[in-house]
Amino acid sequence: MSVVGLIHPGAMGASVGSAATHNKNRVLWASTGRSAESVERASRGNLEDCRTVASMVEQSEVILSVCPPHAAEDVATEVMENGFTGIYVEGNAIAPGRTRGIAERVQSGGAKFVDGGIIGGPAWEASAGTNFYLSGTDAQTIADIFSGSPLQAHVISDEIGSASALKMVFAAYTKGTTALLTAILAVAETEGVRANLENRWGEEFTNRTHNQVARNTAKAWRFEGEMREIAATFASAGFSGGFHEAAADTFSRLGGFKETPAETIDEVLASLVK
Amino acid sequence: MSVVGLIHPGAMGASVGSAATHNKNRVLWASTGRSAESVERASRGNLEDCRTVASMVEQSEVILSVCPPHAAEDVATEVMENGFTGIYVEGNAIAPGRTRGIAERVQSGGAKFVDGGIIGGPAWEASAGTNFYLSGTDAQTIADIFSGSPLQAHVISDEIGSASALKMVFAAYTKGTTALLTAILAVAETEGVRANLENRWGEEFTNRTHNQVARNTAKAWRFEGEMREIAATFASAGFSGGFHEAAADTFSRLGGFKETPAETIDEVLASLVK
Repeated sequence: MSVVGLIHPGAMGASVGSAATHNKNRVLWASTGRSAESVERASRGNLEDCRTVASMVEQSEVILSVCPPHAAEDVATEVMENGFTGIYVEGNAIAPGRTRGIAERVQSGGAKFVDGGIIGGPAWEASAGTNFYLSGTDAQTIADIFSGSPLQAHVISDEIGSASALKMVFAAYTKGTTALLTAILAVAETEGVRANLENRWGEEFTNRTHNQVARNTAKAWRFEGEMREIAATFASAGFSGGFHEAAADTFSRLGGFKETPAETIDEVLASLVK
Repeated sequence: MSVVGLIHPGAMGASVGSAATHNKNRVLWASTGRSAESVERASRGNLEDCRTVASMVEQSEVILSVCPPHAAEDVATEVMENGFTGIYVEGNAIAPGRTRGIAERVQSGGAKFVDGGIIGGPAWEASAGTNFYLSGTDAQTIADIFSGSPLQAHVISDEIGSASALKMVFAAYTKGTTALLTAILAVAETEGVRANLENRWGEEFTNRTHNQVARNTAKAWRFEGEMREIAATFASAGFSGGFHEAAADTFSRLGGFKETPAETIDEVLASLVK
């Protein structure tokens, strides 16, 4: 049994915190300055409110960072400024180069570091099939926290950066092709050949694509940052970041569907094709 | 029965010319300055050698341009400078904007124009399943030439640009995802997580991807230009060309496999990952 601090209980984070409670670990969160939605999610996840990050750092053996990609460094800085000396788990969708940079900062501040990459949706139930890939010399300690929980944890290597890289290359295809298909349909519509394309694709592929593109609009607003991280991952490895810069651009245009996701492909295309 | 001139009998063009002979059309080609391989392909396709483009223009009611994307304007210019007044069929993998530009030149020179887009491999036999999409007011005349031949011709619209656009948006997915998967595997290899990615993908998808990526190396050298045309098509429609600029970059790195295609994914990755 460990004391785990979770920063912050967003849609994904709260479910990860909740999974950590399954083995009777205590999971803390810091409510100061957070939204009513966070309070609600933390309560659903049986997280214990310790009010401040300072108090969380003082009590926690492990801190999990699960936040939007852009905030990853700020979260690590805040935790380390409060003198954390336990195991810091960087669980965000960021390029491995950024993960290695944060690891250096955390380790030089006297804490241990584990890299994590989450593949799948919120892990409230095992049926969600969400996986948490972990790497680094202390990865097994973190995997043990989730043993038997709805979140399946896997240690993939001793190297910091591996878990982040796996997350990046996996999402590179799933989200990358969703963005590509969205743009292809919009270009086909603009050129007046969408019906011909869909006829050529056949009914099964067309229907699956329509569903995939429309369903994605609900989450597109938060994929832009992740696509830019994938582009950075490709560029660091010596490949063009263009695929995912274009994917970021495509998702950024779908931000208007955040509150009311599109139900049909026609709605999506009407918003993209002027 | 028509007299059809074919410029030029490359791997695809010769098969298209051959398909045109099925309905007892005479199909001419101009051997002056062409390679021994062209002579061989023209002979396989039962094409009649009329030596020069000038002679071809004089005798032909229809001229088919099937050439690498970069040469499309030069071919049209050469044909029009020889005073062609029949139906010019632009059958190349080029952006619809370029097709419309060539159409303007051809029509102002006194010839008719049909837009064409070929989807599939060389059409020597019906089992290849190659389709020739045609658009423009004279498209049906061209479709009739191929009726009952191994090349399936379809009139898709009266608009010049539609057939080119259909070719572009279709290849945008097939070749675009092949390039994307190639780059993903190379980035995963660079970061040391390829085995993890493939484990996550599962055996079926992994094997299919390996085959697709390795098989593609034989043709990659000639896909770079087509990818840049797709990028231009996206940009003209107001979308990012980044997906296919990156695909062009990926294919350009595989040019070394032109003579000896890769047999395994390991060969492909060894050439990409330094």
